[in-house]
Amino acid sequence: MSHGEVRLGIGDDCALLRPRPGQEFAITTDLSIAGRHFRLETHPPESIGHRALARGLSDLAAMGARPVAAFVSLAVPRELAGEWTTRFYDGLLDLARAHKATLAGGDLSEAPVPLADIVLVGAVPAGKALLRSRARPGQMLYVTGTLGGSAVGLARLETMPRAQIAKLRRNAPNASSVPGSSMAILYATLSPHLYPQPRIAQGLSLRKHGMATAAIDLSDGLSTDLMHLCEESGIAAEIEAERLPIHPGATLEQALNGGEDYELLFTAPPSARIPKSIAGVPVTRIGRTLKRGGKRPAITLKTAQGPVPLSPRGWQHFS
Amino acid sequence: MSHGEVRLGIGDDCALLRPRPGQEFAITTDLSIAGRHFRLETHPPESIGHRALARGLSDLAAMGARPVAAFVSLAVPRELAGEWTTRFYDGLLDLARAHKATLAGGDLSEAPVPLADIVLVGAVPAGKALLRSRARPGQMLYVTGTLGGSAVGLARLETMPRAQIAKLRRNAPNASSVPGSSMAILYATLSPHLYPQPRIAQGLSLRKHGMATAAIDLSDGLSTDLMHLCEESGIAAEIEAERLPIHPGATLEQALNGGEDYELLFTAPPSARIPKSIAGVPVTRIGRTLKRGGKRPAITLKTAQGPVPLSPRGWQHFS
Repeated sequence: MSHGEVRLGIGDDCALLRPRPGQEFAITTDLSIAGRHFRLETHPPESIGHRALARGLSDLAAMGARPVAAFVSLAVPRELAGEWTTRFYDGLLDLARAHKATLAGGDLSEAPVPLADIVLVGAVPAGKALLRSRARPGQMLYVTGTLGGSAVGLARLETMPRAQIAKLRRNAPNASSVPGSSMAILYATLSPHLYPQPRIAQGLSLRKHGMATAAIDLSDGLSTDLMHLCEESGIAAEIEAERLPIHPGATLEQALNGGEDYELLFTAPPSARIPKSIAGVPVTRIGRTLKRGGKRPAITLKTAQGPVPLSPRGWQHFS
Repeated sequence: MSHGEVRLGIGDDCALLRPRPGQEFAITTDLSIAGRHFRLETHPPESIGHRALARGLSDLAAMGARPVAAFVSLAVPRELAGEWTTRFYDGLLDLARAHKATLAGGDLSEAPVPLADIVLVGAVPAGKALLRSRARPGQMLYVTGTLGGSAVGLARLETMPRAQIAKLRRNAPNASSVPGSSMAILYATLSPHLYPQPRIAQGLSLRKHGMATAAIDLSDGLSTDLMHLCEESGIAAEIEAERLPIHPGATLEQALNGGEDYELLFTAPPSARIPKSIAGVPVTRIGRTLKRGGKRPAITLKTAQGPVPLSPRGWQHFS
């Protein structure tokens, strides 16, 4: 799976990894904690495992890196050590296989609430990773996919009757659901939240074709992640409300601040020929970058009622 | 600090790391959770940070790897987000600096109990890492340092009056303590538990000089970690109670099963010239490896009363 980059996997004090000649490793680590990143009462264990891994894979996608290895440290209360844990790993390992990431280490221990820390290692040609810091004024802003779908799914999940949630938890996604049936429609609504698809193929394509000047993944929400990109690049930006690829059923608020869509936000020069879709996922121009400074807000949202400053209202990290 | 191996540190979606030519990376991840790996009531926050990093550094030491980078994911209840967190990082970063490990990523979030996941990345010449699996029958067994010191320190800590613990928590280790004073003696007793020293220099020396055939660090306890080494190498072992470098004040039981000493256990051919000490830390021959099989126990403890089978009674991982 890893084409020899994982020289030694699980079973020793450390794993041993060697990049191919001319490549370097992108490494990211993400904590997922019950009550903060998921709810034990509402999220199927397969989804919790999938989402924990997706967060790290999405970070690799944003660098244009190819997944190589994952390290999974899971800690759960004793009563979850059986079936729940098996289902968590099922969800996680399905996604790992889909992206050819080898499970290279980690462990299982006990904690008062379930939590997981996931390390992802990806490979990228040395010096070629997509960075947050390379956007320049006068470039175009793009996003992959749609925005707000995760927020819609979460809102739906939180208003579901307990009996329906229990059923959801007993069944794998899409299992035996008839197209067009109410169950199939329900899963389609929940899926962007429960099973987000990290944009690995899209990140690799952007990096390989040298199309993007900067990139970040939309984990915290467009308003917050665009602010990160602007700060790291020392620029300002304006986005157009009418251009945003809002997910069916989502509000503008959810598209701007919902978070956990795990789409890519990237910049490209006006001359770049950005395709309408990459590997089956639409790409939409949503605005442009500007010079920073003066009285200009860091981010401007152009609406039918005129421009308004946009504050980062997505996921705010503690501290 | 990292001699250029950390090409991009904190601030983007991932860190970027590139090994020097001919080297590969050793990677390990360890969760530390309140109530399981430390107690909020008894451990100073500096010690909790130090110990969390020491676990990973000790894994690098056992591979003969040189520390390169650390990723620190910390989650704490809101009320610990101020001074406690600062002191946690103080303890962790002091140890990171001592071993030239660059803080390359991680984050701070909220959790019902404090916990940390630490990723360590080390460098080792490709194909030259010390493994658990390369011991052969008829070799000698060695340990660095002394055994049971962490268990003695923990036992002392757990019987300390609350007022004394509060004092301990307000003061840095060794701060203004007069040699020979009761405070200095107390710290000397507690130090192997609160501030264990990972054997990086010793692991590097063993690897560079080709002296060891296999190695593991003593995190779970000699009885358990020796069992791991025997299983991975497909061998048996016998150790001599009289040869064990038991820490002053520790019992045989603590030396065998106490855990968290973070010393190195390694094997070497009978012909190897193992020095009496490496980088100031004593090295002691404690027994030898044997063929596995027949009615022979995996590990035999030779005592004055004769040989007895030794069961792994150190730290047992959940599940």
